[in-house]
This record gives sequence, C-alpha cells and structure tokens, in this order.
Amino acid sequence: MSYLEKTKEALQAEYDVVKAKFAACKDQNLKLNMARGKPGASQLDIVSDILGCFVDPAECFSDGIDARNYGELAGLPVARAYWADVLGCKPEQTFLGGTSSLKIMFDVISAAYTYGLRNSVRPWCKEEVVKFLCPSPGYDRHFKITESFGAELITVPMTADGPDMNVVEELVKDPQVKGIWCVPKYSNPDGIIYSEDTVARFANLKPAAPDFTIMWDNAYCVHEFEGDFIPFPDIISLCEKAGNPDMVFEFASTSKITFPGAGISVMAASEGNIAYFTDLFSVQMISHDKINQLRHVKYLKDKANTLALMKKHAEVLAPKFRMVIDMLEKEILPCGFGQWVSPKGGYFVSFNTLPGTAKRALALCKEAGVVMTPAGATFPYGKDPKDSNIRIAPSLPPVAELEKAMDVFCTCIKLAALEKLLNI
Amino acid sequence: MSYLEKTKEALQAEYDVVKAKFAACKDQNLKLNMARGKPGASQLDIVSDILGCFVDPAECFSDGIDARNYGELAGLPVARAYWADVLGCKPEQTFLGGTSSLKIMFDVISAAYTYGLRNSVRPWCKEEVVKFLCPSPGYDRHFKITESFGAELITVPMTADGPDMNVVEELVKDPQVKGIWCVPKYSNPDGIIYSEDTVARFANLKPAAPDFTIMWDNAYCVHEFEGDFIPFPDIISLCEKAGNPDMVFEFASTSKITFPGAGISVMAASEGNIAYFTDLFSVQMISHDKINQLRHVKYLKDKANTLALMKKHAEVLAPKFRMVIDMLEKEILPCGFGQWVSPKGGYFVSFNTLPGTAKRALALCKEAGVVMTPAGATFPYGKDPKDSNIRIAPSLPPVAELEKAMDVFCTCIKLAALEKLLNI
Repeated sequence: MSYLEKTKEALQAEYDVVKAKFAACKDQNLKLNMARGKPGASQLDIVSDILGCFVDPAECFSDGIDARNYGELAGLPVARAYWADVLGCKPEQTFLGGTSSLKIMFDVISAAYTYGLRNSVRPWCKEEVVKFLCPSPGYDRHFKITESFGAELITVPMTADGPDMNVVEELVKDPQVKGIWCVPKYSNPDGIIYSEDTVARFANLKPAAPDFTIMWDNAYCVHEFEGDFIPFPDIISLCEKAGNPDMVFEFASTSKITFPGAGISVMAASEGNIAYFTDLFSVQMISHDKINQLRHVKYLKDKANTLALMKKHAEVLAPKFRMVIDMLEKEILPCGFGQWVSPKGGYFVSFNTLPGTAKRALALCKEAGVVMTPAGATFPYGKDPKDSNIRIAPSLPPVAELEKAMDVFCTCIKLAALEKLLNI
Repeated sequence: MSYLEKTKEALQAEYDVVKAKFAACKDQNLKLNMARGKPGASQLDIVSDILGCFVDPAECFSDGIDARNYGELAGLPVARAYWADVLGCKPEQTFLGGTSSLKIMFDVISAAYTYGLRNSVRPWCKEEVVKFLCPSPGYDRHFKITESFGAELITVPMTADGPDMNVVEELVKDPQVKGIWCVPKYSNPDGIIYSEDTVARFANLKPAAPDFTIMWDNAYCVHEFEGDFIPFPDIISLCEKAGNPDMVFEFASTSKITFPGAGISVMAASEGNIAYFTDLFSVQMISHDKINQLRHVKYLKDKANTLALMKKHAEVLAPKFRMVIDMLEKEILPCGFGQWVSPKGGYFVSFNTLPGTAKRALALCKEAGVVMTPAGATFPYGKDPKDSNIRIAPSLPPVAELEKAMDVFCTCIKLAALEKLLNI
C-alpha cells in the first residue's frame, strides 16, 4: 500500500521495519559509489586495445601533415572529418579540442567574458548583468562554469520533450539572457531526447541578445545502451537555415567511447565561429594533440564503426540500468511516491523522491557507505527548490555491487520519506 | 672592410654585388622556413618509439589508480614525481597540464583576470590598469597572452645576465605592475642563462602588488645542444626562502623532448598556489590525459634518462646552430655591423642587424622564399623600437636547406643595410 494512504500506525510499523533494514545496511560497511558518470572497468577493458593500435611512426603522416610536430590548430583533417561524420555537420564546422569537451565549453564562455563572442556588442565582463538559462534538472558542471563567471542562473523546467520551450522563448526576450545549457540527447540526468519540435524551436529562437549562445553538449550522441542508434538532427545546419548560424556551439568527446579524459573532444559551430575561435585560440596554444587524434581515428574509423563499438559498451551498461529500474520498481513503486523514467541511453537515471527528503535520503546513503551525486546538484547553485531530484549514476560499480548500492539507496529513500511523513 | 668605414663608391660597388646575389637567390625559387622553434623531422624520428612503449593495458595501473578513467586532476603521482625530479621541486608543487605549457600559462593569466590570484585584492579585470613586464627581446606568444587581456606591456632591457634587474626592481614598486615574463634558461631568443645573482634578485623582489607574478617559463630547462647539462636553481624554493612563496609560477613541457604539441606539460608553484588552482581548474575539467602522462613517464623515466635523450637531440641540433653561427661569422662579421651570441642550448639565435633595417631585411627574405619570425615580434606589440632584432630559428630545416636559407638571410641583411647606408 502507498505510504501516502497508510495510517499513522501503519507508517510507524513500516518505519520500524525500514529502520532495522537501514541498520543492517550500515553493518555491511559498504563503500560504493554511484556519484559520477564514470564508465566501469569492464568498459575500459573493451577499448584498451586502442593503446596498441598506433605504434608505427610511418603512420604519423596524414594528408601530408606530420602529426608529430606542431601545427593544425583546428585539428587534423581526418579527425575533423570523423567528427563531421558522427555529428552530421561539415568538417569545416569542427574544431578539435584536447581531451575534455568541458574544457572547450569553459573556454568558449571564458572567451565570451574576456573578448566577447563573434556577434557581441561588448565582452560579457563589461555587461552589467549576464543571465544564463539552466534547464533543470541538468548537469552541475555546466551550471558551475557560468556561475564561476558570475552569471545569474535561471532555472528552466524540463519536460518530456526537453526544456520547456514556451518558457525559453519568453526568457530570451530579455537582452541580458546570453545563453542556455543543453544536453539534447539522453539529457543529464533525465535521459530524455529533445523532440524534433523542441530542436526546431531552438534553431528558430529570436533572442534579444545578438550574441545569445546555445551550448549544445551532445555528450551522449551515440550512447544508446538499449535498442538501436537513434539519429539526431544537425543543429548547426538547422540554425543556419533559420538565419541564426552563429547561435549554437555543439560539443562532443570520446570520453565515454574510449578512455574518459584521455580521448579527443570537438566543438562544432558555423564556419564564421570556427574562424573567430581559431583566431582567439591561437593566442592560447599552438596545436592540440594530433597523435591522439590520429590514434582515435585509426581506432574508431568512422560513425558506423563507432556505433558498433557502442553496442559493446551497451552490453555492459544495459544490465546496470536494468538493475536500477528493477530495484526502483520493486522497492519504491509500491510506496506510492517517487518518479523516474527508464532511459535508453546516456549515463543517468533521474529520480524524484518525496519532496523535502532528497538531502536527508542522501545523507543516510552516505552514512551507509553509498556515495551519490549531492542532492540539489542538478539545479542552479546546487539548490533544488523541491529537495526532490536525485541523479543515479549506475555505470561505475559492477552489477553485484550495484545491487547492494541500490538496496541501500531504496532503503534510505524510504526511511527519509517515512521520517518526513511521521514528522520524526 | 666594415660597411661603416666604406666610401660611398665602395658601398655602391658592394651594393651591386649583393643585389646581383639577391637576384640569384630569388632565381632558386626556395621555400624555406626559419620562423618557429619547431624540431626537425630527424628529431621526431629519434623519439618515435614512444608510440610503441605503452601498449599493455595491464600497465595502466599506477599507484592503484586506473589511468584509463577520470580522476587525479593534478596529475598521476608518477608524473608529478617525474617533473619534480626534472625541475628540482617537490611533487606536491606540480600540476600536470595538457599537451601545451602555453595553454596553462594562458589559463593562469586568464584566471588572474576573471577570479584573481591567491593574493589578489580583486580580479585583474576589475583593476583600472594592469601592467606587465616584458624582458625584450622575448617570446612573442608570451607578450600576446597579456596583450590579449588588455594589459599594458612594458619593455625591460635584456642583459647578458638576464633581464636588467635594476629596472625590474624599480618597476615593481608600481602596484599596477602585476607580473613579468621570464625564460630563465636559454632565453627566447637571446639564448642566455639568467645568472645566479639575477635569479636570486627575482626571488627576493619586493613588489608593491601583493599578487605580483613571475611567469617562469623554463621551456629549455634540459635543452643543451652543446656541452653538458647545466644545473639550474629551483625558483620555487628560492621564492619560498625569500618569503615570497606564491610569487612564481614555473612552466615546462616535453614539447621539445618528445613530440611538439603531443607531450605533457607542467605548472610548478607553491603548494598554496597548486591548491588554489586545482580548485579553480576543477570547474573547467575533470582530469588531463593520464594515459599520455603514463606513456611519457614510461618513456622518459626520470631526469637522468631525459638528459641522455637530450644528447641525441643535441646531435641533430648542434650542426644546425653551428651552421648559423659560421654563416654569420663568414658573411656578416666582416661587414662591421650586427651582433649575436652563440648559444649552447635552446632553439634560437638572436641577431641584431643595422638599426632600422630588420623589417626590410625580412621582407627581402620573404621575397626570396625564406620565411622568418616577423621583425619586431620579439618586442611588446610586435614593435622593435630600433627595428634591429631578428630571431633565427634553425631547428626545422635539414642542414643542407639551412645553409641555403642562411645564405639568403645574410644576403638580405647586407642588402637592407646597404640600402639604408646609401639612402636607396
């Protein structure tokens, strides 16, 4: 029976049971982690042959370029072609970064503050106020970047189709609103795919700020763990067709394709933006790691081959996500509170617990040795107004550990809810 | 006989000879490059076995850390230990960057502008004026970084012992003076090593600005091409002993040890600064490429082994520098103008031609198919007040090509000088 329909006595009885269960959990002295979207060791094993795929110096030459020396700031032509194939844009619309797409995102925002973007009237640091839209629940590291520059973060509600576009279209009428963070495919943490209509409305936005910027983090563009690859529209050409060619910067990396933090990243944008940023970035560095670019192109080859590799990752990830969903259905569903969606790709399950109990539930998890992403992290400034959303990241632990971790998690969710309902 | 002692008739006769020689140079249709400190292909061949030195996934584990996954923002302990060995500081005083030390330098200055440094009263972008000292001739990419943030660049003369410390000590009394660019060993382009006294005076500076910063780019710390390794003092501990622990940031990379732009870089600073920047950088990225860190540690092992490798680079570089000096001695010395110093390490020869003729000489070089670093580049804003200094970068072309390039160069130097002396 749902907790919400139980008598006080029945709740108290349930509390005693769950409290005892929690004590038993603690006695296991667990040390488990579901905090971050880190691939598990068996995923890393799958791709470890990348280490040996490029050992012959004769293969360092690509399009007449010696990848061993300085040069080609925007990346080797073969690496740009690889990303154009994956993202569905043109090679000239790509710029290869280092090992971290987050770092290029930071550098774009940092450049907007210091120098201004291509269509800026002035650098953002000279604006009185800069506001940035944060569809929430969302990715804490995105929000932190704009927060670190002093931007005012504005929460935009998420729907099953992506950010609430009615809200977005209204907010962009304010010229102080300079941009928005987006994860269009398997959004972090909701795991939803922006609908075709949502993407079209993004491309056709008419923001008041001439330098309004969509930060389109396509982190999970080929990251299905269930079912076949789902194609996604090329946001660069959609924005171009809508007369907003410079409005979007798309990002991706191989961090969850090969080795996290040791792969290659990319920024895709209009050719005008790529030229503008190639010029800005030329002050910062001579060129990125072309050896690693070549190694990755040799290993991943193209989109089709990358998708085949992602099927192997899926074999590892799918049972983990199934475990999470099964546990939630078995343990939480009967309690009559809590919402979640079963995603088919990405790295997270977004779970909404009884409002006002998320922080407490995760404190209990911590007490029982299970580390989760802090409650609130999925909202601007780390503050979830409902204290309800929790991001579950099941990729790191092996399935057996994950089962234990989810058992603790469900126990803590129930215990925190019971405490609240019983005013304990 | 020196040009400066020749009669007008003798100069005219020499002009006719050199002019004819220049025409002959042009007829060769050369396409040679002495513009940048790029290692030559044979140097890259020496180190290309690095590609195959790390292929076994079992070797990915270091100090219990799986280098294939996210984590360890400051770098793997073995990589920090490697740099501490090379630089003579403590591992805790190091922070591993990506493939480019220039990028970490940029990021430090950028952080100073956006957030302020550890001892800043306010971010530099909130200061009315920021002044930065640029010992000149110096490295154009250094100067460009501070210029891009709108700093006022102040030229400090170079002496045979390093920057003129009398001038530096005077200038740092101005609280608007926030820092100085330094290349302490084989300075770019002069190739001189800062004297012990100069280094001590740097460590003991008493700047008015609490956040005055020495950008200590130790780019050529192990880069002798003639003679044995010359030890250098650890600037971090010197500053600490002088009561200025946070005043210096040291930088280095393997760009001229293994592959340019595909190696590992490091920032060394006080533990307080490392903690401060680890916190700031955690907003920008999760971790740098630990696989490449491990690959480099496996390949380079330690300082002693690195120095042995540098001897191999020296075998390639020494004949190139000898060629440059020989040509200058043969062609320019008799002309009675022009100064240069024969360096024993680094990547450049700094040449001062007849004042007022450097730009013209390099325009002539370009006409004859030899690309050089633009005249003026070694001074703030790209403007050499004497129009005299030229940076020669002999590392890229093979010796045979270099001989041709230097022949063209000397011809153009003479022709430009003759034009000036004859008022042509």
